[in-house]
Amino acid sequence: MTTQTQNKIVNDVNITQLGETIHNVRQDPQLAAFKARAKNKWISGTFNKITIDDYYLAKEEQKHKQSFQINADEPPILLGQDRGANPVEILLGALSGCMTTTLAVYSAVQDLKVESIQSEYEGDLDLQGFLGIREDVNTGYNEIRVKFKVKGDATEEQIREMVKKSPVYDTLIRPIKIKINVEKE
Amino acid sequence: MTTQTQNKIVNDVNITQLGETIHNVRQDPQLAAFKARAKNKWISGTFNKITIDDYYLAKEEQKHKQSFQINADEPPILLGQDRGANPVEILLGALSGCMTTTLAVYSAVQDLKVESIQSEYEGDLDLQGFLGIREDVNTGYNEIRVKFKVKGDATEEQIREMVKKSPVYDTLIRPIKIKINVEKE
Repeated sequence: MTTQTQNKIVNDVNITQLGETIHNVRQDPQLAAFKARAKNKWISGTFNKITIDDYYLAKEEQKHKQSFQINADEPPILLGQDRGANPVEILLGALSGCMTTTLAVYSAVQDLKVESIQSEYEGDLDLQGFLGIREDVNTGYNEIRVKFKVKGDATEEQIREMVKKSPVYDTLIRPIKIKINVEKE
Repeated sequence: MTTQTQNKIVNDVNITQLGETIHNVRQDPQLAAFKARAKNKWISGTFNKITIDDYYLAKEEQKHKQSFQINADEPPILLGQDRGANPVEILLGALSGCMTTTLAVYSAVQDLKVESIQSEYEGDLDLQGFLGIREDVNTGYNEIRVKFKVKGDATEEQIREMVKKSPVYDTLIRPIKIKINVEKE
């Protein structure tokens, strides 16, 4: 109870806890090493199931309070049955979650109140790449457009700078190394 | 009924429909222009909700059979309440769904039967970046490791080449342009 009344909360973000975390990480940077994970199981055709469960952080193996499942599929026009979102859509979802959380947390740190955040994401793909029709066309996104509508204290310029700190945003604007290991069973 | 018996299905992928799609796109490349979308609404703190609903493909606005919702949150150690997966985990989920679907479809095209596909994803983040402790540390992933376990006809080398055609994989290994528009309400 004592702790709770002493905690400073802005935008439902516990600024006191965040300050303690930053203090602890400054003392021991290894606490900041985060290994995020996901698993996937193919069901049939374009349908597969994602499970998010455990991770490594603060020098320990950790588990979420619950295991999260996301279904991935394609719509009928892309050979599936719409039993889940398309993985390229889920990617935009990840970007949206990350930019939104970053904005709420970074605003809180600067004591800028947020009343509402809504955002829309659109990315362009040319399926000539995936369909193998043109070798010179990338299979992935060429450009992603993001539109934020925000009610709160921060200016448009502050919002633009804060959302760019998002880890998923930062991952997408840089080339990332992906190592692939394959085992036949 | 007649159509169904004529359709060639491998790995639950309709190869006949895929062939027709490729034929149509060769005649009219504009059919392959795909605009994928996601929306996000901030709820509180690190909690927000992703909605995936409509997209543009085959020169038309399209709608999924159902609207897909994904909750994003952080665990308590990262200031949240575990009401959803972390956005950086959802990103790995998107990668997993895309590599898996790509493997199933590309195998089917080459008449390589797949019996099972399981995969695991792990990415490294250094939270000193996000926490603002070190300016020289990226907020996003530095490296992602992928492990596939596959039962089926394809060789390890074929699998490795096929999964690299994944649109989300291709998006992550290249730098992507993200345009941000901010509107204050």
